[in-house]
Amino acid sequence: MNQPDLTKGDFTLPGEAGYEALTLRLAEKWGADTIRDSDGTQLSPEILESGHAIYSTVCLVRSIQSWAREHHDQLQQNFLMSFPVVADKASTTIKLLDGYYDEQFTVNWKDAPKKWWQVFDRTTGKEVAKTKWSVNPKKGTVTIAGTTPGHKYTVNFLALRLWEEISMYNHLTNDWGDREHLAAVDPMQPAVQKQLLKFLERWLAEHAATKVVRFTSMFYNFSWFWGADHKRLRDVYSDWGDYEMTVSPRALKLFEQRYGYKLTSEDFVNGGLYNSTHNAPSRRYCDYMEFIHDFVIDFGRQCIDLVHQHDKLAYVFYDDHWVGVEPNSARFAEFGFDGLIKCVFNAFEVRLCANATGVKTHELRLHPYLFPTGLKGEPTFKEGGNPTLDAKNFWIDARRGIVRAPIDRIGLGGYLSLVEPFPDFQDYIEGLLKEFRLLKSFHAGGQPWTSPVKVAVLTAWGELRAWTCSGHFMPGVELYSVIESLAGLPLDVQFISFDDLVADGVPAGVKVVINAGRAGTAWSGGHFWENPEVEAILTQFVQKGGGVVGIGEPSAYPQPGQLFKLAQVFGLDRDSGERLANGKYKFDAPASGVAEHFITADLPAGAELAFGKDVDGIYVHGPETKVLAARDGSPRLATHEFGKGRAVYLSGFTFSHENTRLLHRALFWAAGQEPKWSVWNTTNIRTEATCFPKSRKLVVINNAGTDESTVVTLGDGKTTKKVALPAHGIAILDV
Amino acid sequence: MNQPDLTKGDFTLPGEAGYEALTLRLAEKWGADTIRDSDGTQLSPEILESGHAIYSTVCLVRSIQSWAREHHDQLQQNFLMSFPVVADKASTTIKLLDGYYDEQFTVNWKDAPKKWWQVFDRTTGKEVAKTKWSVNPKKGTVTIAGTTPGHKYTVNFLALRLWEEISMYNHLTNDWGDREHLAAVDPMQPAVQKQLLKFLERWLAEHAATKVVRFTSMFYNFSWFWGADHKRLRDVYSDWGDYEMTVSPRALKLFEQRYGYKLTSEDFVNGGLYNSTHNAPSRRYCDYMEFIHDFVIDFGRQCIDLVHQHDKLAYVFYDDHWVGVEPNSARFAEFGFDGLIKCVFNAFEVRLCANATGVKTHELRLHPYLFPTGLKGEPTFKEGGNPTLDAKNFWIDARRGIVRAPIDRIGLGGYLSLVEPFPDFQDYIEGLLKEFRLLKSFHAGGQPWTSPVKVAVLTAWGELRAWTCSGHFMPGVELYSVIESLAGLPLDVQFISFDDLVADGVPAGVKVVINAGRAGTAWSGGHFWENPEVEAILTQFVQKGGGVVGIGEPSAYPQPGQLFKLAQVFGLDRDSGERLANGKYKFDAPASGVAEHFITADLPAGAELAFGKDVDGIYVHGPETKVLAARDGSPRLATHEFGKGRAVYLSGFTFSHENTRLLHRALFWAAGQEPKWSVWNTTNIRTEATCFPKSRKLVVINNAGTDESTVVTLGDGKTTKKVALPAHGIAILDV
Repeated sequence: MNQPDLTKGDFTLPGEAGYEALTLRLAEKWGADTIRDSDGTQLSPEILESGHAIYSTVCLVRSIQSWAREHHDQLQQNFLMSFPVVADKASTTIKLLDGYYDEQFTVNWKDAPKKWWQVFDRTTGKEVAKTKWSVNPKKGTVTIAGTTPGHKYTVNFLALRLWEEISMYNHLTNDWGDREHLAAVDPMQPAVQKQLLKFLERWLAEHAATKVVRFTSMFYNFSWFWGADHKRLRDVYSDWGDYEMTVSPRALKLFEQRYGYKLTSEDFVNGGLYNSTHNAPSRRYCDYMEFIHDFVIDFGRQCIDLVHQHDKLAYVFYDDHWVGVEPNSARFAEFGFDGLIKCVFNAFEVRLCANATGVKTHELRLHPYLFPTGLKGEPTFKEGGNPTLDAKNFWIDARRGIVRAPIDRIGLGGYLSLVEPFPDFQDYIEGLLKEFRLLKSFHAGGQPWTSPVKVAVLTAWGELRAWTCSGHFMPGVELYSVIESLAGLPLDVQFISFDDLVADGVPAGVKVVINAGRAGTAWSGGHFWENPEVEAILTQFVQKGGGVVGIGEPSAYPQPGQLFKLAQVFGLDRDSGERLANGKYKFDAPASGVAEHFITADLPAGAELAFGKDVDGIYVHGPETKVLAARDGSPRLATHEFGKGRAVYLSGFTFSHENTRLLHRALFWAAGQEPKWSVWNTTNIRTEATCFPKSRKLVVINNAGTDESTVVTLGDGKTTKKVALPAHGIAILDV
Repeated sequence: MNQPDLTKGDFTLPGEAGYEALTLRLAEKWGADTIRDSDGTQLSPEILESGHAIYSTVCLVRSIQSWAREHHDQLQQNFLMSFPVVADKASTTIKLLDGYYDEQFTVNWKDAPKKWWQVFDRTTGKEVAKTKWSVNPKKGTVTIAGTTPGHKYTVNFLALRLWEEISMYNHLTNDWGDREHLAAVDPMQPAVQKQLLKFLERWLAEHAATKVVRFTSMFYNFSWFWGADHKRLRDVYSDWGDYEMTVSPRALKLFEQRYGYKLTSEDFVNGGLYNSTHNAPSRRYCDYMEFIHDFVIDFGRQCIDLVHQHDKLAYVFYDDHWVGVEPNSARFAEFGFDGLIKCVFNAFEVRLCANATGVKTHELRLHPYLFPTGLKGEPTFKEGGNPTLDAKNFWIDARRGIVRAPIDRIGLGGYLSLVEPFPDFQDYIEGLLKEFRLLKSFHAGGQPWTSPVKVAVLTAWGELRAWTCSGHFMPGVELYSVIESLAGLPLDVQFISFDDLVADGVPAGVKVVINAGRAGTAWSGGHFWENPEVEAILTQFVQKGGGVVGIGEPSAYPQPGQLFKLAQVFGLDRDSGERLANGKYKFDAPASGVAEHFITADLPAGAELAFGKDVDGIYVHGPETKVLAARDGSPRLATHEFGKGRAVYLSGFTFSHENTRLLHRALFWAAGQEPKWSVWNTTNIRTEATCFPKSRKLVVINNAGTDESTVVTLGDGKTTKKVALPAHGIAILDV
C-alpha cells in the first residue's frame, strides 16, 4: 500500500465573507478541497475564485417567499389535535389553536372541515357525528352540540404553517426581531412544483461557481409543533422521524387513489401521540410513509436532475427537511444524490451516515460547530470555552464509528472567524484531519475485521431506522445507548423488522438477536409481538442454538399472567403489578455488585451496574435462570440456557465503557463464542482495537480523556501487544 | 353516665390444660369472662368448670378425617394451570403437577378431563381443540398433538387437595413429622353435608360446657397453592380473598343451572393470575362469588341453626376458611352468627371487624400471640424477647381503630403458660384491658365526632372489601396504607364500587372520593374505568364542587395519549413511555422538600415525602396544576382546582404519622373545608384526638413510642388544650 497524502483533501471548510485571508489560510492548513457557505450566508468572490470546490446550500421549500406570501393555501399543513376540553353542558365550544403558537399555525378553514376534520369524545373514544358540530372561522372555534357533561372532547383539524420551523427556531433563538418569517410551501401542489423548479433553474444558473449543491434537505421537516408558552411548553410535539408535516387534503386524496383506502385525521393524531417514531407504527401509517417517500423520490429526482444538468453535484443533509428522503431505504439510490451529509455527535450517527447506500460520498459534519456557545449555552469559541477539548471529546465519540465504517469526507460548520483566537484548536483540527485521512486509507484497503458474532437488532422499524432511533441521542431510550455501544464494536450488525423476521426468519449467519426497549415502543416492538410467528421464530432460533439479548422490556406484549412473549426463553418475565398474589422464585444473587461470569469479567471489582433508570419487577422462572446482579429482589443481569441456545437479560442500558464491554461480552456469551473472545480485543475497557487485515494495520484507540495502557490480543488468539495511549490518543501498529 | 367497671368482662382468655392455676389467676387478673381453647387443643375439666364461659373452636371441613380418607372424590379441589412448556416438536407432553407440591395436590382424573379441562396455546392465546390432546393418568401427563414448535402450552386441570392448607402450614412450620395430614372435604357434595351435620350434632352434644362455638371458619380456605420447592417457591399463588378453592364440577354445574351460562377453567385460571383480589375482577367471576356466597350462607345457616338448637352461640373467625362468608356483605346477617372474631395487626382490621353488620359481637384477637417467636421468627415470649413492648406497639396501632369504631370484645391466642415469666406483660395487659373497656364505654354512650369531610373510597370491590385489600397488610399496595391512615381519622368513610357509582352516583353527603392504586388493580379500578359513565360522574362531581384524592395511578385505563381517565380533573397524567415525543409542561416546584400549602403545613420543615416506591413519569397539563413536591421532574404531590371542585394527586402512599396527616389535610383541602380543620385536631402528628360528644370526653392518644405533647383545639375551633402523653399513652379529658 502506498502511503496516502494525509495533509490534503476530503474536508469541507465553512468559508466566511470578510475573513478571506483566514479562510484561505485555514483551507491550506487543514487541506480543505471544498469551501462551503451556510444557510443564508454568501461567500465572497475572493473565496469563490480561490480554486477550491464550492459548496452551496439551498432549501427549496423556503426559497420562494414572495410567492408563498401570496399563496397561503399552498403552504404546508398538518393535523393538530386541540387540547382536550371537558364539557359542563350540552354544548361545548373549543378554540382550536388554544395552547398552540399562533405564529406557527393558522387553521385551514378552506379545505372543507367536515370532510377532513374529526371531533372525538375522548371519554368514550368515539368520533362525534359530523352533523353535531359546526365551525366558526371568525372565532377560531368548533362548537359541538349534544355534549355529555363530564366528557372530554378534542378536534382534529388541519392547520397551515405560517412559519417554517428551522427559520422559526433560528429566529427566536437568536432574537432576530423583525427579520422575515420564512414559510415552507407544499411541494405536492402542482403550482408549487412549477415555482420550485423555476427557482432552482435560476439559482443554479446564478451559482456558476458552485460545484456541490447541498439540499437542506428535500421538502418536509421533521415534526415540530410549538406551544403558545415558549417558556413552559415550547415543544408540544417533536419527532425527528414523524411524517405529520407532510399531510394535506391533496396528499390524502392521492393516497386513497393509490392505496384504495382512506386515511383519517385520527391516523395522524392518534389521541395526541401522533406517530412518534418511538412508538410501534400502525400498518396504515407505514403505508402513508411509503406513499410520501415515493413522492419525495419522484419530485426530488426532478430537482437533482436539474442540478446534474448544470454539471453540479447534489448532496443532501440528513436532518431538518429530511422526511421522506429515508437514506436507509433501499430506494434512496433512486434520488440520484451524489452525497449525504450527516451532522454527528455520536458514533451511531457515523454508522447511520455510512449505512446509506446509493450515494458515493458520505460526509460528516463534526462538532463543535463554530459558534460562540454550545447546545446547552455553555461557552465554546469565546472566553471561558475550551474548543480544543470539546473537539477532542466529540472526536473520540465519532472516531469509534469512523474506525468501523468508511466515511468519505468530514467538514465543519459555523463562523470560521471564531477560531482565529484559538491556535491550538487550529492545530488540533489539522491533526484530526490527518487521523481521519489515515483511517479512510485503511478502509480503502479493505474492511476491518469483524468477530464471528453476527448480530441483528430487532425493532418495529428494522433497516429503515438502522443506527438511529429518532434523531440525536436521547437519554432514557435504551436502544440509543445500545447502538452507540455497537457502533464501535468489531461486530457485523444488521437491523431487522418484525416483518422481515416473519417473512425470512432470522437472517442467515446471525448468531444473536437483540431486542431492547420499553413495552409498546417501536424498539421493543409493541403490537408487532401480537403475531405468534414472531415468538415462534425467535424461540425456535434459540432452541436450535441461537442467542438473544433482551434489554428493558424485550418482547413485551401484555397478556394475562405474562408480559414478555419470550419469557420462557429468557427464563424470566416482568410483573407489571398484576402478580401480587403470585409467588416469586427466590433466586441466588450477590448482595451487591455482580456475580463472576464471562459476561462480567471486565467490570471493576465491586462495581454496581449503572443502567440508568432500569426496569424493576422482574421475576425468574426457576433455577435455570442465573441472576448475575439484582436490586430490591429484581434481577438486573441474568442468563438462561434454553434448548441449545442462550439468552441474556439486562434490565436497562446506558452508554459507558463498562456497559459497552458488558454488552460485547453478553453477545459473545449468547453466541457461545467465549473461546474466541480475546482475538483483537483489549484488556482496558476504555480502549478498543480494530484490525484492518488487508492493510495489516492494528488501530488502537483511547476513548477516554486520560492516558491509558492496554493489551491487545492478536489474530492468533495468543500473542499480545501492550500499547500505551495518551488521552484521546490513537496508535497504529503493523500486524 | 355511670362509671363502668373497668376490671371485668369482654375478654377471651386462651386457657391451657396443665396450667390450670395460671389460667384461673390470669382470668381473674385480666377480668376474663370467657376461656377459649385453640384449634386442636382441649381445656381440662378444672377450667371447664371454673364458672367462665367456655369457647371452643371447630373446623368442620377438617372434622371428618376417617371418612375423608375413604372418599377422596369428596375432597375439595381447584383448577391449576400447569407451568408453561415450550414445544420443540409436533407433539408435546406436559406433566401436570410439575412444580406443584404433590402432598397438597393430586390430579382429579375422575371428573371427565375433556369436559372440564382446557389446554391453551399461550403463544396465540387460543384454546387447543379437545380432540388434539389426551391424558395419561398413570404418568400424570397430558399429550398435545399438532403443537407448533416455539409455542408454549399449558393445561388447566382439576386438582383434588389431599392436605388442607392450614394443617399443612402448621405441620410443616412446626415440623410435626408423621402427624396426620388433615384433608378438607367439599361441603357442596350432598354426602359431605350429611356427614358434617352428623359430626356437628355429635360434637355439640359432647361439648356441653361450651357456650360459644367458634367456627374456623366456614368451609373454604383462602387460595393457597404450594410449589414443590418450599425453599424457593413455596407459594405459587396465595390470595386471601380468591374463591379458587371452592371449585368443583358440581359447583360449575349448579352455577350453570342458576346463571344460565357456563364458566370455563380459564375463568378461574386466567393465564395463571387466577382471580387475585388485587386485580379488577371479571363480571363472570363476580357472579361465581355470589353463587358461592349464596351456598355458604345456605349450608352455613344449617350448621348455625344446629348450634343454636344446642343453646350455644356461633362465632366465626374472619380468616382461614372464611371464603364465601363475606362479613362485609349485606347478606352476612342471614347466617345468624352471634359473633365475628378478627385477628388484627392494624387499625384497618379493627375497622374491618367493626364494619360487619349482622352480628352482635365483634371481637378482636390481639397480637402478640402467645408464641415463643413472632411472625418473622424474632423472639417474643422467650429469652431476648420483649413481649410487653411488642404488645404496646401492636396496641397503639389497633387502638387508633378502636377509638373510632365500637368493638365488643378482645382476646388473646396461643399458649398462656408462656406469659408466666413476664409479669410486666401480665400487668400491661391488665391496664390495656381497662383502657379497652373505657373506650368501649364511650362508644356505648354515643358515636365519636366526625368531621364534615365525608369520604368515599372507590374500588372495584366497594363495600365487599371495605377496610381491607386482601388480608393482612402488604407493603407496596398503596390502599393498605391509605385505609390504615383513615382507620384512625375522625372521618366518615365509606367504600363504593364502580357499579355503585354508576347506579347511584357519588353517595349523598360525600365530599371527597379517594381512588388509590396502580393501573389495572382492583384498587385503582382497572377495566371498570372503561365505562365512560364512571369518568362522567366523577368529573361532574368535581365540576360541581366535589373533591377527589388520587394516589398512584388513579383512574388508570390505557388509551392512546392518555392513562388517567380523570387526567383533566387532576390536571396531570402519567406517561407510561409512549410520550417521548410529546413535550411536558415545565412546572414550578421546590428543588427539595415540599411547597408551603395547607396540605403540607404539618410536615417537618425540609422533609422529603416518603411515599415508598411511588409512581414516576407524571406530567402536568398547565399552570392550573400546582406542584407541591416533585422528584426527577415528576410531580409527587399536586393540587388542581377544577370547576367548582378540587383534586389532589399523590404519587404514592405509605402509612406513617406524616402521611396520615398529609392525607387528612388533603381530604380537607379537596373538600374545601380548610376553615374547619382545627376542630378536634392535634398539633402533634404523632397524636390523635377523638371527641365523644355524648360522653363529653376527649380521648387523646399517643401513637408513638416516645413521650409527646400536643395541643388539641376544642369544638368551638378556638379553645385549645395542651396535653402531655407518655410513650404509647392515652389521656381522657372532660369537655
